[in-house]
Amino acid sequence: MKFTDGGVCAAKGFWAAGLHCGIRKNKNKKDLALILSTVPAKSAAVYTQNLVKGAPILVTKKHLENGIARAVICNSGNANTCNADGIEIANAMCRSLSENTDISENDVIVASTGVIGQPLDINPIKNAVPDLVKSLSEHGSLDACNAIMTTDTKEKEIAVEFSLGGKVCRIGGIAKGSGMIHPNMATMLVFITSDVNISREMLQKALSGDVKNSFNMLSIDGDTSTNDMAVIIANGLAENSEITGEGEDFDTFMKALNTVTVALCRMIAGDGEGSTKLLECCVKGAKTELDAKKVAKSVVCSSLLKAAMFGADANWGRVLCAIGYSGADVDVNKIDVAFKSEKGIIPVCENGSGIDFSEDTAKEILLCDEIEILIDLKDGIAGSTAWGCDLTYDYVKINGDYRT
Amino acid sequence: MKFTDGGVCAAKGFWAAGLHCGIRKNKNKKDLALILSTVPAKSAAVYTQNLVKGAPILVTKKHLENGIARAVICNSGNANTCNADGIEIANAMCRSLSENTDISENDVIVASTGVIGQPLDINPIKNAVPDLVKSLSEHGSLDACNAIMTTDTKEKEIAVEFSLGGKVCRIGGIAKGSGMIHPNMATMLVFITSDVNISREMLQKALSGDVKNSFNMLSIDGDTSTNDMAVIIANGLAENSEITGEGEDFDTFMKALNTVTVALCRMIAGDGEGSTKLLECCVKGAKTELDAKKVAKSVVCSSLLKAAMFGADANWGRVLCAIGYSGADVDVNKIDVAFKSEKGIIPVCENGSGIDFSEDTAKEILLCDEIEILIDLKDGIAGSTAWGCDLTYDYVKINGDYRT
Repeated sequence: MKFTDGGVCAAKGFWAAGLHCGIRKNKNKKDLALILSTVPAKSAAVYTQNLVKGAPILVTKKHLENGIARAVICNSGNANTCNADGIEIANAMCRSLSENTDISENDVIVASTGVIGQPLDINPIKNAVPDLVKSLSEHGSLDACNAIMTTDTKEKEIAVEFSLGGKVCRIGGIAKGSGMIHPNMATMLVFITSDVNISREMLQKALSGDVKNSFNMLSIDGDTSTNDMAVIIANGLAENSEITGEGEDFDTFMKALNTVTVALCRMIAGDGEGSTKLLECCVKGAKTELDAKKVAKSVVCSSLLKAAMFGADANWGRVLCAIGYSGADVDVNKIDVAFKSEKGIIPVCENGSGIDFSEDTAKEILLCDEIEILIDLKDGIAGSTAWGCDLTYDYVKINGDYRT
Repeated sequence: MKFTDGGVCAAKGFWAAGLHCGIRKNKNKKDLALILSTVPAKSAAVYTQNLVKGAPILVTKKHLENGIARAVICNSGNANTCNADGIEIANAMCRSLSENTDISENDVIVASTGVIGQPLDINPIKNAVPDLVKSLSEHGSLDACNAIMTTDTKEKEIAVEFSLGGKVCRIGGIAKGSGMIHPNMATMLVFITSDVNISREMLQKALSGDVKNSFNMLSIDGDTSTNDMAVIIANGLAENSEITGEGEDFDTFMKALNTVTVALCRMIAGDGEGSTKLLECCVKGAKTELDAKKVAKSVVCSSLLKAAMFGADANWGRVLCAIGYSGADVDVNKIDVAFKSEKGIIPVCENGSGIDFSEDTAKEILLCDEIEILIDLKDGIAGSTAWGCDLTYDYVKINGDYRT
């Protein structure tokens, strides 16, 4: 398996585009994205567990009941959530695409991201769809990626190439992260494409299984969004023999998919709203995987630890505190903690108590952009990893007045 | 029932003191507190559910097994948590008080608050206890209150006077709040005294019942501390007939206790670490009290809503979002939301959708120091209230480098 270029257009038969249609005032920021398979394709998705769901989620769920989709249309700048006419507008987005292509309205995945509770005007979208379709290209992934960004500062795209039964296969993805990110059995906006030939059931199984170890282990600010969605579309153009059950091919596909999703997780965490650094919490020695997950996620969600990491302060007591209230079954007198980055590794706690360490070395390690928090519970063999970011002045600034 | 002065010394037979012993470098900040009943007394407590527990918690639990205590000794500046010699030091604090008074070591409640994982030197405490005991007075509540503060900016004390069977009774309390405040079946540091005559069992029942609607409905930053403790000491000097079961007297006592605890909750929330305003989320129309509690607490815990309140931004979509992921059983299409302060009230959401409102009026209302977020779920008759504060630059600043 190797990384490759092209994002959501890396797999055969996928085109993408992104442009500014006018939902946002800033003409330099694209706000409408399109991803399309040139041939019929299967699709699977996972959605936010928030009871308040954006209208696009409800429409997409309906369209994916048959496991078939060929296109994703997504706007940023407005979540189309908590609006009385939300469903109508989301349907109109799909219809608009259908009218300008040979794709059935029911084969369109629709998504929106941005402010909640402000009516979404269909006109700028409707007027822009013909141009959006015309601009579709094999090099359009980055444009689509840019168009779904909200307060993200960086495009998030990735693709991998691997082989199944001698056939070259690809999986690629783009993501919108930043704020209101605390996935719960689903995720933020992630669109993944693949040319692998796989049954609808195994595609859903792969995605649902993967998110437990990828997007569901990610938190920026503890707020589970109303519009979370992760979608995968697979069109079979790689011509491998169809994956219809578990086995070597499915494992290879899962490994490639997980490489894509973990890379997107790290990009989303590293570009968390207002953040200056990526936090990766690696837990080992847990009694069960669930205990490991609880510990890892609790640590990356702690406001106090996140603020300490912003200040490059090796305040490991906050790590212990977060482990203690995680709900995991742990023996607090066995816990080891260390901080690690490209500058080195420094153990700070052994068997639940502090040990002597150089504050200068710790500071040097914690001033890096990517920090690993290593926790050994020494109470079993299960492990897990979670991703997050630091809590900064800019997070407060961005969210103190997001709507204006 | 009426409010009265004196804090933890309002009730008959209670003395208090606070001084600087040297745990903190800043000589102007007191760091050692003492509260003492001149006669034997009963005591009840609730503790943090964090698995990582400060050594003082473990020692206090042991001392309160018989429901008897006469004194509280508490230092700030160091949590005495995750230290190999923690229990030894906590015991030494109790012994030191015992050696300077007629109080048995086993009748001392010990507490510590501050940084986790730094050894606590017993010497400054030991050396200061004789002076601390000498300075005990009926006017010492504010000194004790000051000595338990960490990053709190205001002393938090309150007392009420009421009558039981013609006898004048009092309950008073002091609290330490600020950061790492997200009580779970217990609370931050709260010391409450009373001269009411009540059985040990009913005293525990009163406290355990009360915290469900007071301290457990409070969150500053979602981090459940390792050193949370709420203690009540009742010495019976009011000479009312002993409360030994439920009934009118117990109800009166509960009402007075709840007045004290809610007042302390509001003080703690209003003085949350770095905060500029108190948030009070009042939920009604819930199917069950538990649903109401989940909704109220989820809203005051949302980082996004907290940041919006700091910016006086009426971003009610974040209220809906937090309700949606709260885990409560709600019908999202029935929810009404309004913001309220001393400047007025403004409805912003009806039946789960936005309504037209004046942004100028909303801004004026949200610029006040105390904001009520009113939620009507219109789906039942249960209600609950939670307290929190806004998320500010200063929270990040304080916690980015707390240890230095």
